[in-house]
Amino acid sequence: MLIVMRMGATDEEVRGVLARLKEFNLEGHLSPGKERVVIGAVGVIGDPDIRAQMGRMSGVDEVIAISRPYKLTGREFQKEDTVIDVGGVKIGDGTMVVMAGPCSIENEEHMVTTARAVAASGAQILRGGAFKPRTSPYAFRGLGEEGLQHLAAAREATGLPVITEVMEARDVELVARYADILQIGTRNMQNFMLLDEVGLARKPVMLKRGLSATIDEWLLAAEYIMAKGNRDVILCERGIRTFETATRNTLDLSAIPVVKRLSHLPIVSDPAHGTGHWYLVDPMARASMAVGADGLMVEVHPNPDHALSDGPQSLTLENFDSLMRSLERVGEAVGHPLAPQPQLAAVAD
Amino acid sequence: MLIVMRMGATDEEVRGVLARLKEFNLEGHLSPGKERVVIGAVGVIGDPDIRAQMGRMSGVDEVIAISRPYKLTGREFQKEDTVIDVGGVKIGDGTMVVMAGPCSIENEEHMVTTARAVAASGAQILRGGAFKPRTSPYAFRGLGEEGLQHLAAAREATGLPVITEVMEARDVELVARYADILQIGTRNMQNFMLLDEVGLARKPVMLKRGLSATIDEWLLAAEYIMAKGNRDVILCERGIRTFETATRNTLDLSAIPVVKRLSHLPIVSDPAHGTGHWYLVDPMARASMAVGADGLMVEVHPNPDHALSDGPQSLTLENFDSLMRSLERVGEAVGHPLAPQPQLAAVAD
Amino acid sequence: MLIVMRMGATDEEVRGVLARLKEFNLEGHLSPGKERVVIGAVGVIGDPDIRAQMGRMSGVDEVIAISRPYKLTGREFQKEDTVIDVGGVKIGDGTMVVMAGPCSIENEEHMVTTARAVAASGAQILRGGAFKPRTSPYAFRGLGEEGLQHLAAAREATGLPVITEVMEARDVELVARYADILQIGTRNMQNFMLLDEVGLARKPVMLKRGLSATIDEWLLAAEYIMAKGNRDVILCERGIRTFETATRNTLDLSAIPVVKRLSHLPIVSDPAHGTGHWYLVDPMARASMAVGADGLMVEVHPNPDHALSDGPQSLTLENFDSLMRSLERVGEAVGHPLAPQPQLAAVAD
Amino acid sequence: MLIVMRMGATDEEVRGVLARLKEFNLEGHLSPGKERVVIGAVGVIGDPDIRAQMGRMSGVDEVIAISRPYKLTGREFQKEDTVIDVGGVKIGDGTMVVMAGPCSIENEEHMVTTARAVAASGAQILRGGAFKPRTSPYAFRGLGEEGLQHLAAAREATGLPVITEVMEARDVELVARYADILQIGTRNMQNFMLLDEVGLARKPVMLKRGLSATIDEWLLAAEYIMAKGNRDVILCERGIRTFETATRNTLDLSAIPVVKRLSHLPIVSDPAHGTGHWYLVDPMARASMAVGADGLMVEVHPNPDHALSDGPQSLTLENFDSLMRSLERVGEAVGHPLAPQPQLAAVAD
Repeated sequence: MLIVMRMGATDEEVRGVLARLKEFNLEGHLSPGKERVVIGAVGVIGDPDIRAQMGRMSGVDEVIAISRPYKLTGREFQKEDTVIDVGGVKIGDGTMVVMAGPCSIENEEHMVTTARAVAASGAQILRGGAFKPRTSPYAFRGLGEEGLQHLAAAREATGLPVITEVMEARDVELVARYADILQIGTRNMQNFMLLDEVGLARKPVMLKRGLSATIDEWLLAAEYIMAKGNRDVILCERGIRTFETATRNTLDLSAIPVVKRLSHLPIVSDPAHGTGHWYLVDPMARASMAVGADGLMVEVHPNPDHALSDGPQSLTLENFDSLMRSLERVGEAVGHPLAPQPQLAAVAD
Repeated sequence: MLIVMRMGATDEEVRGVLARLKEFNLEGHLSPGKERVVIGAVGVIGDPDIRAQMGRMSGVDEVIAISRPYKLTGREFQKEDTVIDVGGVKIGDGTMVVMAGPCSIENEEHMVTTARAVAASGAQILRGGAFKPRTSPYAFRGLGEEGLQHLAAAREATGLPVITEVMEARDVELVARYADILQIGTRNMQNFMLLDEVGLARKPVMLKRGLSATIDEWLLAAEYIMAKGNRDVILCERGIRTFETATRNTLDLSAIPVVKRLSHLPIVSDPAHGTGHWYLVDPMARASMAVGADGLMVEVHPNPDHALSDGPQSLTLENFDSLMRSLERVGEAVGHPLAPQPQLAAVAD
Repeated sequence: MLIVMRMGATDEEVRGVLARLKEFNLEGHLSPGKERVVIGAVGVIGDPDIRAQMGRMSGVDEVIAISRPYKLTGREFQKEDTVIDVGGVKIGDGTMVVMAGPCSIENEEHMVTTARAVAASGAQILRGGAFKPRTSPYAFRGLGEEGLQHLAAAREATGLPVITEVMEARDVELVARYADILQIGTRNMQNFMLLDEVGLARKPVMLKRGLSATIDEWLLAAEYIMAKGNRDVILCERGIRTFETATRNTLDLSAIPVVKRLSHLPIVSDPAHGTGHWYLVDPMARASMAVGADGLMVEVHPNPDHALSDGPQSLTLENFDSLMRSLERVGEAVGHPLAPQPQLAAVAD
Repeated sequence: MLIVMRMGATDEEVRGVLARLKEFNLEGHLSPGKERVVIGAVGVIGDPDIRAQMGRMSGVDEVIAISRPYKLTGREFQKEDTVIDVGGVKIGDGTMVVMAGPCSIENEEHMVTTARAVAASGAQILRGGAFKPRTSPYAFRGLGEEGLQHLAAAREATGLPVITEVMEARDVELVARYADILQIGTRNMQNFMLLDEVGLARKPVMLKRGLSATIDEWLLAAEYIMAKGNRDVILCERGIRTFETATRNTLDLSAIPVVKRLSHLPIVSDPAHGTGHWYLVDPMARASMAVGADGLMVEVHPNPDHALSDGPQSLTLENFDSLMRSLERVGEAVGHPLAPQPQLAAVAD
């Protein structure tokens, strides 16, 4: 923490800052400047509120944090990449996993059919929503536990591990009984009660970036989960809110290499939610691979025109298959191949 | 709903759209254009997903909603302003109420002292946080139920109704036992489970705008609460996220007259969170009154330098008193006066 | 300038930084930290590129500027407010001036009629556009010099000084022959050639904030003008681009007190362009006064339904008159009254 | 254009709208709705201001444009991709061209050395700035015509066509004497005088996206150039301003496939300005290729630590060479290869 004094701050003000730092067990080092005095605070800054309090003191112009606000999620805490094993699928080991499936789970047959198709095309993980956050109270909000059962049936039928969203602290135990990865949605990135709760669960957690979250805030949200003991956190970039309206959000692909530099956690890209248009999924998925994403979320629906939610951004089964072929080629070109599939279930029919 | 066809869409594509509308019990009216055909859909559009599904059909360029997505919160549903009575204080009746108190409740003495001071300066409602959402897991997160008890003691001591935040669905019943108004924080604006739950509570709810929520999304979040039966919803503008970093957020004061035009619900302004600097509270509070806000949230702390949270944006007791005097004058000038205080408790000591 | 080294930076890297600073005639002061070394650079940093160059050196994590990037525009350079005299009207002296008139100049009669009306309602300065920046090449782009002549006729007829936009370096001399204040539009805030040119003119300049300009960038743009010798710069807040679409832009009223803290230059508010709706002009104009704006830009048109540009955000003559009455009362309430009018021309008819 | 009436608009208001449409030679078609009347306007809407004027009429809730605001730049005007030939290099033909060179031209030797190196690595076009827009008036602003001469020398030495920025209408003729492509910078995207002027030049123009320009505004800016007769316009995505501060801007890669859908013009990506960090250039360049960009702008400097501007985002010659090898592989994988180089000059020494 550096405390920049105003031009013309008095000696008394400087002494006041030094004295207050001492109250917090911090040592102040004066650095004289042409225009202003800067005070460096040395010691362990346990409480982030200290910075705010110093900023209000007489004579202080600005307080600058020089430590990163997060700890456990940072590269400075752990140099090597975190690699998470989900039912035999490795996430974060230099390959890219594809998580595919419908946005909403509609019924068992629909779920199993889609699951078989994405498995046949090469997906490593199956996705499907049973609890759906919706902007309007009048929209379809998911099948709940019944949906989780269909998801489990589809895992059975294919051998693919499953990921699904949990929206509330009191549902974590229920969802964790069915899911292999717990997904935290973008609107819940700072639902701190929920973060605490999945921090206590024994399942990996995929944390989507908030619509207007900075990378620092996102890593601090991951820190909530890790601070409770759960080290298996996967980040997911899914587009940020900007002024542009041609796309639903702006998929911030540069966030992927930035996060990989700051943190050891794996990071996944969600091009469908990031853009809101199916015709952008394909190019943005390839681009996600080219920037080094550890994974990809893709919405696939046998009949997107009739999907119960987010139809406009879903791929057909044929489009998904063709995307996978294209990703194989790009993965090879950039030295970042698709991950191997887990042991698939034998198909009866 | 208007469906704009692409230039050169075929008759078959147009017929396809008309047929699909029929499946949804909507009638399609063709409107010929120089360049494109536009189809107006007449009927009750129950499910917002219909729009997305139409948008994916062959030949369709764009689907435009012409009904507002919200119903109960809209002026078209209710012409007259909603006026909410909270322990004798009227919110939304053309006066402005001031909700003042510390950001965090620190202890009973601190709470009661602050409460007496803000009551003496003319505040109508007392605020104080017992459950605090914090960006970092290592920051002070509030006293919980103990804090609620201090808040109740301060209400006892002053006669002012109290407002406090609830962060989780399972805490609504607890917080509602103590609070006169339930506050939903900015990070929870789209925590739909929580919205459902306070929609069932028998206490007024103040819903803060999400950091990057459009006004439409905000009114849809209020719709969640109203759809569950709770009509006493107060909106609170508290700054949106923009590219500017000189202030913590950008307080969108124009949202206040915009909301008053679109909705019958009362709306409050929170200049401290909107700006992040105490020296901006005063001018932005006066401006909030000038644009017609129904209320004002202000953080007041006897000793902001030592506050446990958000010290940099709190007013001292003296500054708050001087702000109230200034608001009296502005309120008179714009014909939008401060609300009368409720019956205050007799002060013993 | 502070140079924050990475955790674990080597002694050699630190020595490298110190050596490079010496090349720039800067002295480096080491400040040891628990986690990282910080180097303070003391001396005159003439070239802003130095900071970028230091940031690329081996072992450097971040370079933090502690001097403000602007000089002449800053309060640290000049403590007292700049007060600009325009034909007897003082801008920046603690009163508020109102600059009113049509968005585009349409013909002489229209200009003179509007001018007389706004003068009668109490405006201090007359505005009108002869060169109009338009997003589409097919929109009306102004009358050019003919428009300037109508503007001069309206000045003659009323005695009000006039402000009008100049869009190009090669037009500065022409526009300065007619105008009392040269206006630089939002799209030209970083048209550095134009800034240089008006910096050489002997007329005050009003510099609108760029649509996505930070306050620092805006003050740096003003610095361009001042660096060429023209000290009479007026800033104008006119709304920034955000994700919200209910308003055309988001008028950032908090920028006004922020600018007044950082800079000695006067600052004006333009609520019409900031919001895009005439019904928001009134409340946002009052709010601008409440936050301490030194001036107000208002579009007034005798018949806004037929205006050649920006009709939707213009006031009628009646609305303008009623706004002026309301501003009188607010100005009194906040101790920031309307400025006196200049000596008006005798009206013949 | 669709005119949506308010709920409960009177018949008289509807008739008023129809009558006004007639004044503009437009025919109004009524489309009855459950809740509101919608009026479709059929005919040629020459003047974009008509829409604004209709929006202010009594009883009108909203006016919705259904034609795209641009014409010449749209796919609806020209179905086939525009392919531009620059000294034998084809831009927009399904291959990707690489425009490489220093941000600022520093001296002839430096320019020629860099040019030879980028030619040897496979670049098709040479870039270099002689006129530099700089946020601060105290930063290096380029060598001017002397720089253009060095650039011409480097073209001579290598055979690569050159691109360089023009900042002002009165410089277009000068810059066009030296340059093969005229570049319009991001801050000048809406400098309409400059757009008009390059619209009259006989050289291709590369138009960078404004920092906060929507795609529609960007295409309208291109429309200015095309409306003057110059059809050889290249667009360049270079990052938009968002709330995120970890990167200088947010490179909006999804804009590339969106633009290719809306327009026939070629589009180039500038990952260095978009991100501000050299370590992001490589992944974002590969991603640009993966989404189908027609070209890439890259800053290369033999010694970026000593560059006169934008050092932190420049690649070394070695890094550039390795990037080109990587792009070859990605181009092959996505079926969008690097363009062939033009005939190179024989190297003497």
